Amino acid sequence: MKAIVYDAPRSFSYRDVAEPKVEDDEVVIRVRACGLCGTDLHIHEGEFGPRFPLIPGHEFAGEIVEVGKAAGNWRAGDRVVANCNRACMECFYCRRGEQLRCENLVAYGIQMDGGFAEFMRIKARELFSVSGLPWREAVMVEPTACAVHGMDVLDVRPGADVLMFGAGPTGQVLAQLLKRNGAARLTVAAPAGPKLTLAERLSADRVVAVDRHHPEAHRAALRDISPNGFDYVVEATGAPEMCAEAVRQTRRGGTVLIYGVYPEPATFPVNPFDVFRNEITIKGSFAQIHDFGRALAYLETGQVKVDEIVTHEFKLKDWGKALEHSWQRQGIKSVIIPPGGS
Amino acid sequence: MKAIVYDAPRSFSYRDVAEPKVEDDEVVIRVRACGLCGTDLHIHEGEFGPRFPLIPGHEFAGEIVEVGKAAGNWRAGDRVVANCNRACMECFYCRRGEQLRCENLVAYGIQMDGGFAEFMRIKARELFSVSGLPWREAVMVEPTACAVHGMDVLDVRPGADVLMFGAGPTGQVLAQLLKRNGAARLTVAAPAGPKLTLAERLSADRVVAVDRHHPEAHRAALRDISPNGFDYVVEATGAPEMCAEAVRQTRRGGTVLIYGVYPEPATFPVNPFDVFRNEITIKGSFAQIHDFGRALAYLETGQVKVDEIVTHEFKLKDWGKALEHSWQRQGIKSVIIPPGGS
Amino acid sequence: MKAIVYDAPRSFSYRDVAEPKVEDDEVVIRVRACGLCGTDLHIHEGEFGPRFPLIPGHEFAGEIVEVGKAAGNWRAGDRVVANCNRACMECFYCRRGEQLRCENLVAYGIQMDGGFAEFMRIKARELFSVSGLPWREAVMVEPTACAVHGMDVLDVRPGADVLMFGAGPTGQVLAQLLKRNGAARLTVAAPAGPKLTLAERLSADRVVAVDRHHPEAHRAALRDISPNGFDYVVEATGAPEMCAEAVRQTRRGGTVLIYGVYPEPATFPVNPFDVFRNEITIKGSFAQIHDFGRALAYLETGQVKVDEIVTHEFKLKDWGKALEHSWQRQGIKSVIIPPGGS
Amino acid sequence: MKAIVYDAPRSFSYRDVAEPKVEDDEVVIRVRACGLCGTDLHIHEGEFGPRFPLIPGHEFAGEIVEVGKAAGNWRAGDRVVANCNRACMECFYCRRGEQLRCENLVAYGIQMDGGFAEFMRIKARELFSVSGLPWREAVMVEPTACAVHGMDVLDVRPGADVLMFGAGPTGQVLAQLLKRNGAARLTVAAPAGPKLTLAERLSADRVVAVDRHHPEAHRAALRDISPNGFDYVVEATGAPEMCAEAVRQTRRGGTVLIYGVYPEPATFPVNPFDVFRNEITIKGSFAQIHDFGRALAYLETGQVKVDEIVTHEFKLKDWGKALEHSWQRQGIKSVIIPPGGS
Ligand SMILES: NC(=O)c1ccc[n+]([C@@H]2O[C@H](COP(=O)([O-])OP(=O)(O)OC[C@H]3O[C@@H](n4cnc5c(N)ncnc54)[C@H](OP(=O)(O)O)[C@@H]3O)[C@@H](O)[C@H]2O)c1
Ligand SMILES: NC(=O)c1ccc[n+]([C@@H]2O[C@H](COP(=O)([O-])OP(=O)(O)OC[C@H]3O[C@@H](n4cnc5c(N)ncnc54)[C@H](OP(=O)(O)O)[C@@H]3O)[C@@H](O)[C@H]2O)c1
Ligand SMILES: NC(=O)c1ccc[n+]([C@@H]2O[C@H](COP(=O)([O-])OP(=O)(O)OC[C@H]3O[C@@H](n4cnc5c(N)ncnc54)[C@H](OP(=O)(O)O)[C@@H]3O)[C@@H](O)[C@H]2O)c1
Ligand SMILES: NC(=O)c1ccc[n+]([C@@H]2O[C@H](COP(=O)([O-])OP(=O)(O)OC[C@H]3O[C@@H](n4cnc5c(N)ncnc54)[C@H](OP(=O)(O)O)[C@@H]3O)[C@@H](O)[C@H]2O)c1
Ligand SMILES: [Zn+2]
Ligand SMILES: [Zn+2]
Ligand SMILES: [Zn+2]
Ligand SMILES: [Zn+2]
Repeated sequence: MKAIVYDAPRSFSYRDVAEPKVEDDEVVIRVRACGLCGTDLHIHEGEFGPRFPLIPGHEFAGEIVEVGKAAGNWRAGDRVVANCNRACMECFYCRRGEQLRCENLVAYGIQMDGGFAEFMRIKARELFSVSGLPWREAVMVEPTACAVHGMDVLDVRPGADVLMFGAGPTGQVLAQLLKRNGAARLTVAAPAGPKLTLAERLSADRVVAVDRHHPEAHRAALRDISPNGFDYVVEATGAPEMCAEAVRQTRRGGTVLIYGVYPEPATFPVNPFDVFRNEITIKGSFAQIHDFGRALAYLETGQVKVDEIVTHEFKLKDWGKALEHSWQRQGIKSVIIPPGGS
Repeated sequence: MKAIVYDAPRSFSYRDVAEPKVEDDEVVIRVRACGLCGTDLHIHEGEFGPRFPLIPGHEFAGEIVEVGKAAGNWRAGDRVVANCNRACMECFYCRRGEQLRCENLVAYGIQMDGGFAEFMRIKARELFSVSGLPWREAVMVEPTACAVHGMDVLDVRPGADVLMFGAGPTGQVLAQLLKRNGAARLTVAAPAGPKLTLAERLSADRVVAVDRHHPEAHRAALRDISPNGFDYVVEATGAPEMCAEAVRQTRRGGTVLIYGVYPEPATFPVNPFDVFRNEITIKGSFAQIHDFGRALAYLETGQVKVDEIVTHEFKLKDWGKALEHSWQRQGIKSVIIPPGGS
Repeated sequence: MKAIVYDAPRSFSYRDVAEPKVEDDEVVIRVRACGLCGTDLHIHEGEFGPRFPLIPGHEFAGEIVEVGKAAGNWRAGDRVVANCNRACMECFYCRRGEQLRCENLVAYGIQMDGGFAEFMRIKARELFSVSGLPWREAVMVEPTACAVHGMDVLDVRPGADVLMFGAGPTGQVLAQLLKRNGAARLTVAAPAGPKLTLAERLSADRVVAVDRHHPEAHRAALRDISPNGFDYVVEATGAPEMCAEAVRQTRRGGTVLIYGVYPEPATFPVNPFDVFRNEITIKGSFAQIHDFGRALAYLETGQVKVDEIVTHEFKLKDWGKALEHSWQRQGIKSVIIPPGGS
Repeated sequence: MKAIVYDAPRSFSYRDVAEPKVEDDEVVIRVRACGLCGTDLHIHEGEFGPRFPLIPGHEFAGEIVEVGKAAGNWRAGDRVVANCNRACMECFYCRRGEQLRCENLVAYGIQMDGGFAEFMRIKARELFSVSGLPWREAVMVEPTACAVHGMDVLDVRPGADVLMFGAGPTGQVLAQLLKRNGAARLTVAAPAGPKLTLAERLSADRVVAVDRHHPEAHRAALRDISPNGFDYVVEATGAPEMCAEAVRQTRRGGTVLIYGVYPEPATFPVNPFDVFRNEITIKGSFAQIHDFGRALAYLETGQVKVDEIVTHEFKLKDWGKALEHSWQRQGIKSVIIPPGGS
């Protein structure tokens, strides 16, 4: 079958590889679409601990073509996605029930072969049916599941004033979930452009344009909206400097969610007197491991709309072009379509 | 001024009483509308500890006509509602910051004169501006504030499967808040009729008709929707027998919210083995004391729609008719309009 | 090897059975001691879904005698206990991270052979080292782990007034944990006798004698201690009638923990008006699945003392006598010692 | 009466001032002892918004000498302390029930006259009886109440591994409370000396000496104790550089409590990638407003021992010497004794 294979950081090729063989507790799927996400750019650089050679792609969706002997009730033809993260069940964290914190976490598309290929094999117990979703929406189950976990971590109190920085694909999903999880008033702040416009249409009560080089403008606009700050501020840009901005916009007793993925060595300054005096909370949310079911509930009922988030499609062989497109920050979200895909 | 005055349980008259005199930290408002709620029926019977003689009415909204010397920035003409509950700040509970549990709680319309009158006086610090709401919606701030407190108590986890019994005015507000606070899938179960139809239009993903005398029907329908029960079940009928029904519909690890007001001596049977084995939680939510601000946020932004909930208006002098109408379970919610009211 | 084998409810014999054979990811242990707990009495009656033929015993401790090829770093001679519950990782609950609520939960001593035998086999990933504990204390790791989970469920606010009904072995552990987890003032109420005396010595700030037939006495004593009730009330007798007593003793805003195992059909009456008006919470705590590590921390540091709880030892062959002794409510806790055991 | 009066920052004198006159809802107490705390050093510098002229002192304890007409059941001779913080009940935060976050918070000893005087007047509803505590322990109710609030904020999960930096008077109280609120294993890290020794005697399971200039030593020691860090890390030194150290010592999923009072402009660097990847939480705890009752429960039952924390006494007229003594970091905690005091 055809696949994108990385042999080392930044070194990939589109080539023929052996088709996966199903194990008893597994299925093989034909990949119909696989989302390209920021994490794939990190993996391209060799970050996040990838195992080489590697077929990346963790936002895959496809059709079952082969079913192992002990793979439950799944049938060829079933439309599925799968939870991409697998915990070891043996480490310190797994044994105390914190599998997301597993010391040996592995993921399809990082340590196991992923969805930038015609076929892939998956443990049956990791599958979820997406019979009701178009392929372009099915690739969004994984980022939505991460965002649902973000909601768990943030734990918004009913009726809150919420601010989010960032309006990329992840921000769009987070914003819709925030409106479904306690944000009575949601402000989205991001650079002006189609992303911010989409947030305004899909979720935000108020939007504020951010000028990367002139924070005074968005600060003044936010002060107008809520002079004493916000109950919750979600940082979803991935820019370290915006973390300090997030803390600055937080009301007494408020919470900042650090949701982006930041350059590993970057830091931002925190004022401990303010944290103490204003009882600010700063928290992080990392990926997800048990949240596909709830993400599906939001997507299937149309409460989280992702159709307009996926703006571009690339053929699997055009992976290089898709990367370029991403680096140039064009469109909102791209999807990779393998041969035979949708 | 004209007012409805109770001299004893069930003994009321529409008569002239002295107009209230403003204290320094108070305002006097002309009442423009005042909701009739189930609590008023209890007060009619002398329940909930009323002080006689009493002008009832705790869901009032009106216009400021007089401002005390130390009443802050309020101005004549301001459109306002007010938090109806006042804690003593001295008892065991108040001193530990649990003012809703105050041993000496008093309320407008129960121990202090309320809104079934042309005028009433209110502490300035209890006021909230409703400049953006029509009077018929402004009377719904208080029940919405109670429901916001219910959301705090219920503390819904994001993406939950939620069931609510009851579709009265309170149920309508709760249902809309549930969809804004974690319920990815909301089922409302209540007797068939206009209330259930309104819930379907305003909030519920699914509705189920309840036949008071044949629970098998709604049980089967609920089993179809969620075979292993619901994460959260809200009891909002006020019928004790529905409390047991609520527990029965709860999934392992799930929570039942006892939100109704029940006949004081009634009980329902709970199976402690099930509570233990399935780790069920049963909780109660009582009124509110700090939640008007958040209720307003939901109402002003149209996220909680109450326009269609208020189905009937009665003149103040027709209080007796309004009572009759309520006892006969007609309409959804009635509003009392004093002379000069809206 | 010798073992107690049940072929059906109430039908057991002490007989020779084949020794267990180790699988790759397992070890075999020589059982040195195994606690007798209330659950074993239920299993004797065929309750809790036992698989027959069955060797019961889930509170086992022993020495490793054989190590599978893929059983990690364990060595023959290591002193161990093991988490007795195993989730399927495939059901609705497991897939959303709630493994304790697994629809297919199995346990050593219930669906898998347990510790009333000379040897048993155990998955390596379920083992915990008890190098620092005498055998009679090591059998208490499992009930302590359950009690730690109870603490998680109860989630005591710092500085609370806590009441517990019951002073059996489980109550003794709960009481010590309560003092380590938020109970500034702990009252234990149970029938007078050595159990209550032990609670007074080990943990309780106050003890109150309960007369099963005359609740007025303990009610008066509890009213003296805390006239408006307790923040948390733990029901640890297993008697359904004490559940209602627990609710009655709960302060506004308080929480009742239903910790006992009750006859399956029993119910107790709950007054929904009180639950609503006083915002009472009623919760259940069931077993545990991830909490051995924390139980060990409490036992190894002597913060939970169990030495005096284990009052009797029986030889494996005397299982019938141990049962009789339990039914007659003698002693506090009995331990079964297989041949070659401690 | 005699008092220490500040007319401006750093400008104080010991002089005669008029005795306070009781209002109806107040009492006057003869101050028997008043603790000197770090906050007083800030007030000396004019920080924390003091109103001048000011009698400082917020950790006062004394005997009632005069009772206002509406001051409830208090009697001359009653031994009391009082909650030193008062919220306005009118601002945004107060109206939503967050009185600790009041925009107009005032305190005895900061904006109202405090306890460095022979007499002071106090609202009756702010009083708490300390009939069972010696004066030197009664002055510790206020810092203990702050620490109880810290426990609320930290919200320790049962059975946790906890690390605290700092072993001053506040650290001593926090450490004892941590052992009573979830810390199965508590490590205290502070400069070697009598403070660390006292922590070892009163509360810590392990102590680690901190060398201010060589963090490698305590880092290695902490790694030995818990190689993957701690579930909770409490920063109680007030040194900004120790905040970063606290984050560094936090385990995946762990929480840092910023409990110190830091120089207002200081910052510490936070790595957002770590916060995200390890799901670290950073929180602040500020003072208290409703927690005297629970602090008393811990002190009266001897669960928090403060006798050895108070190491020095100074006469009121020797306030200058007491300040010097504090700046030189001598002793652990000093108490000021007015004429006629204990
Ligand atoms: N926590 C998790 O589990 C998780 C899961 C998925 C993704 N993530 C992370 O979440 C972040 C957002 O993901 P995404 O897919 O939405 O990313 P994205 O497509 O890169 O979008 C980022 C958004 O932030 C804006 N932005 C970027 N830098 C900014 C700056 N310096 N100042 C102001 N705005 C700035 C962008 O504006 P323009 O595009 O207009 O420049 C865009 O609106 C990323 O860091 C991603 O890695 C985290
Ligand atoms: N916790 C609080 O703070 C708070 C605040 C406000 C109200 N409440 C209480 O909340 C409850 C609901 O308030 P509401 O104003 O919505 O009341 P409502 O107008 O009486 O509505 C009750 C709803 O429950 C249904 N119902 C009544 N008895 C039933 C039974 N035996 N079986 C099935 N359905 C039944 C009614 O159906 P039909 O009308 O079609 O018969 C209606 O849909 C009341 O008990 C009220 O006192 C509580
Ligand atoms: N939730 C869980 O995960 C879990 C785990 C382990 C055990 N449990 C359950 O927890 C309960 C306590 O366990 P245990 O081992 O301590 O049991 P136990 O040895 O039977 O002790 C029960 C205690 O309650 C007292 N008691 C019994 N019936 C009473 C009544 N009607 N009124 C007042 N006091 C009464 C007993 O007094 P006398 O003995 O003096 O009569 C004794 O002090 C049991 O139901 C057990 O099955 C639950
Ligand atoms: N959040 C609140 O509500 C609240 C309430 C009360 C107090 N506080 C604050 O809590 C902090 C502790 O109070 P306290 O009364 O215990 O203060 P303290 O007497 O100054 O004690 C501070 C402790 O931290 C140690 N320490 C100081 N600087 C250090 C450094 N750079 N590295 C390592 N250790 C260092 C000190 O060691 P040596 O003394 O041996 O040098 C001492 O053990 C203060 O900042 C205080 O203002 C906060
Ligand atoms: Zn793991
Ligand atoms: Zn009160
Ligand atoms: Zn399962
Ligand atoms: Zn205030």
